[in-house]
Amino acid sequence: MARSRKINFDIIVRILGILLIIEAVFMATALGFSAYYGGQEAFVWSFVDGLHEFWSIAISAFFTLLVGLLLYFIPGKDASKVIGKREGYIIVSTAWVVISLFGALPFVVSGCIPSYTDAFFETISGFTTTGATILIDVEAMPEGLLFWRSTTHWIGGMGIIVLSLAILPFLGIGGMQLFIAEVHGPTPDKLRPRITQTAKRLWGIYVLLTIVETVLLMLGGMNFFDGICHAFGTMATGGFSTRNASVAGFSPYIQYVIAIFMILAGTNFTLHYLALHGRIKDIWRNEEYRYYIFTILITSFTIAVALILSNLGSDVEQAFRDSIFTVASIITTTGFITADYLMWPGALWFLVFMLMFVGGSAGSTGGGIKVVRQLLLFKNSFLELKRLMHPQAVIPVRMNGRPVSQDIIFNVLAFFLIYIIIFAIGTFVMSLLGLDFETAIGSTAATLGNIGPGIGSVGPVGNYSEIPGFGKWFLSFLMLLGRLELFTVLILFSPVFWKR
Amino acid sequence: MARSRKINFDIIVRILGILLIIEAVFMATALGFSAYYGGQEAFVWSFVDGLHEFWSIAISAFFTLLVGLLLYFIPGKDASKVIGKREGYIIVSTAWVVISLFGALPFVVSGCIPSYTDAFFETISGFTTTGATILIDVEAMPEGLLFWRSTTHWIGGMGIIVLSLAILPFLGIGGMQLFIAEVHGPTPDKLRPRITQTAKRLWGIYVLLTIVETVLLMLGGMNFFDGICHAFGTMATGGFSTRNASVAGFSPYIQYVIAIFMILAGTNFTLHYLALHGRIKDIWRNEEYRYYIFTILITSFTIAVALILSNLGSDVEQAFRDSIFTVASIITTTGFITADYLMWPGALWFLVFMLMFVGGSAGSTGGGIKVVRQLLLFKNSFLELKRLMHPQAVIPVRMNGRPVSQDIIFNVLAFFLIYIIIFAIGTFVMSLLGLDFETAIGSTAATLGNIGPGIGSVGPVGNYSEIPGFGKWFLSFLMLLGRLELFTVLILFSPVFWKR
Repeated sequence: MARSRKINFDIIVRILGILLIIEAVFMATALGFSAYYGGQEAFVWSFVDGLHEFWSIAISAFFTLLVGLLLYFIPGKDASKVIGKREGYIIVSTAWVVISLFGALPFVVSGCIPSYTDAFFETISGFTTTGATILIDVEAMPEGLLFWRSTTHWIGGMGIIVLSLAILPFLGIGGMQLFIAEVHGPTPDKLRPRITQTAKRLWGIYVLLTIVETVLLMLGGMNFFDGICHAFGTMATGGFSTRNASVAGFSPYIQYVIAIFMILAGTNFTLHYLALHGRIKDIWRNEEYRYYIFTILITSFTIAVALILSNLGSDVEQAFRDSIFTVASIITTTGFITADYLMWPGALWFLVFMLMFVGGSAGSTGGGIKVVRQLLLFKNSFLELKRLMHPQAVIPVRMNGRPVSQDIIFNVLAFFLIYIIIFAIGTFVMSLLGLDFETAIGSTAATLGNIGPGIGSVGPVGNYSEIPGFGKWFLSFLMLLGRLELFTVLILFSPVFWKR
Repeated sequence: MARSRKINFDIIVRILGILLIIEAVFMATALGFSAYYGGQEAFVWSFVDGLHEFWSIAISAFFTLLVGLLLYFIPGKDASKVIGKREGYIIVSTAWVVISLFGALPFVVSGCIPSYTDAFFETISGFTTTGATILIDVEAMPEGLLFWRSTTHWIGGMGIIVLSLAILPFLGIGGMQLFIAEVHGPTPDKLRPRITQTAKRLWGIYVLLTIVETVLLMLGGMNFFDGICHAFGTMATGGFSTRNASVAGFSPYIQYVIAIFMILAGTNFTLHYLALHGRIKDIWRNEEYRYYIFTILITSFTIAVALILSNLGSDVEQAFRDSIFTVASIITTTGFITADYLMWPGALWFLVFMLMFVGGSAGSTGGGIKVVRQLLLFKNSFLELKRLMHPQAVIPVRMNGRPVSQDIIFNVLAFFLIYIIIFAIGTFVMSLLGLDFETAIGSTAATLGNIGPGIGSVGPVGNYSEIPGFGKWFLSFLMLLGRLELFTVLILFSPVFWKR
């Protein structure tokens, strides 16, 4: 049992070091855009708001690399052992925090986001693929920094794929336990062997879809910079745009492309793998996928019809486009915007708000409660009525034709409950800070669900700049909680975790 | 098994008949107040707004009695058989609707509430002990009708005691399964024998507490009419007052008396039984009771301190009184008002709003989710973290020192989930009707939880008069759902119930 061992901090530190080295490499890629767009003053110092962005990114990347190398080489011989369950929990939670702490550097050093609190919020919002922004004027930011900002999404998405498909099932968390039976090997205490294999496979799909989307966006008239940034934001279900109007200013073609790729990004990546191997029938047999697609279709059709009937969408095509874009954007927890849904009739934006509690599919880059959990919860609730009528019978919930173990149902029910409790506490904390009711629940729901835009003053045309400092740190914590499926983080606060 | 038999409609009709006869008798008691307060025109016709209230009540009571007798005598020989499980479900759900349909008559016939929709809403709000009112000027209503209105609370409270302590445990529903082990006899399909015994015992306590409260209120200067009406409203955790300002206009002494009796009414009635037999230690051993009392104390202390610090309660004593009164009123789902909590800082009224999702104790007259369910949910969530660390171990939730069966945890979790789903759907429906966001969630939470006042325009100084007609019927349905612990009603909509 993991409990009987001492926690191997050597390996934790070493892995964090590796992650920082990787982060530094990614950060350095932003230098290309910075140099290209930086123009004449690209390589001179500018002390007006701090360093020029190029040097800010370079210095930040170098510093991150340096710390990464230190963390890699300092730990002793224990660092080469296999990773245990408890180490896994600690690594996953601290990883997101540590890379956000360093990822915020280019914004602060350049002076483009002077407050470290703001920069950290923006960065963890990126890495958790939330997309909540404190930037009022996105277009005023230098391209190099915007690219780094979008890259945090993409790195976060990569992290989530390996996390939700390979690591969390080992830790006994997450909807994917339902699907990847093979990861439950006889040695659940050893993480390494299967992760590499699964990760490579699915990262390949992630990279492939990102490239295809970038090309399709460029075919629609976007330049390479806008194309890759939006592709990063889409595939990671992040939502950072390079424009103040988000996706609203782009052509209908581009909006449709992004909508479709948001839906793809919110789909279980193992289904993409099946699709690439021609197993289309197996995809449709997946109940979560059917439920996910039906929810999107029915909700967006309802909203579109309502918009047309209420004469708010003058254009039928636009009404349908805005509806499917908004529904796809919110349910997948991306957060790109083409329409200000808060201007829709109350019932419609409440529908959008409710979608914030659905979330993407398990094994996708989407956050939130996740479709499969919703499905299990609905099924279990319905069966409870049956159980009342037949108290002696054992009536299990079935998913994809197979009975689901009681342990998993228990876990899902507890997840939902804790999610709602955290949502309520979060709203309370935000209203303690003086935010109005709608902004309090909107900011909590949108960060906990890793969506980005919420309701109230953090709605689709608003941003998080006016949230008080403590609120930004608190919402950052909610993003982390939501992204890591609650338990991963919460367990670190439980005494049972630290007991030997 | 119940399923193999035909549903015995004879017995259902006969029991509904008995209930109508009882209702007619209670209705007739309002004639006394009507005659006493009716003055010179008490026994003459008045066609201005319909009949004089005295005759309206008399005619309504007579008509109800007549229908009751018909329903009692029409059914055939099957009506004398024992009541099965399925008949139990049907009786419980239809009983509340049928007595509300007839209970609305005096309001309509008198012309005091001209719309039958409004009258039905007011009546089912009474019987479900909700206390949501459509009356703008309560004091303009004749005393006889106000007494009948408060009596609906008291009858509803009696119904709930027998329901939650004796009937629902048989049907496999409700928190009381945890406590009354003895009702799970070897013949769960036969309801009758133990109900009478349990009911008599607890009705005695209910009547006794009502008398004591009435006397205490009269000692504080209330007249008999106000005293008994407020005692009815308190003990049933209803909340209908005879005054426009609810309890705000009465003396601090009266407010304290009502606060204490609200807390007593929200306590499991079997604990009162223990108290009467001097078993005080056993009471404190009850975890639900401890949690209930602590929640009230901590929440009201927090609110009081915050009110004093924010200089809103100029008077320290009043700040404490308003806090404890409001907290007791909302957590027990009574809904009496001494302060407009919507004028408090946002975080404080959000705290009050959250209390709407706690509810009274199991086996009390309080509605909502119930304290014991919250407690089980919290415990189970916490244990889920332990289970993640020790996946092989079986870690049951314990309550009052004993492990709780998985079936009950499942039921509680499903209850919570369905409650939240209905809350979300309800809010959506209400916003479809054009209500603003706060009123939509406020009216849904306050009716589903049988509280009465919510937030938005149905807040403590508002009322339900402006809700559209369909909304009133819908909210009436929510009151019924909440009052009958969801499953009792929902099961009637499940095909498995009607299958032979």
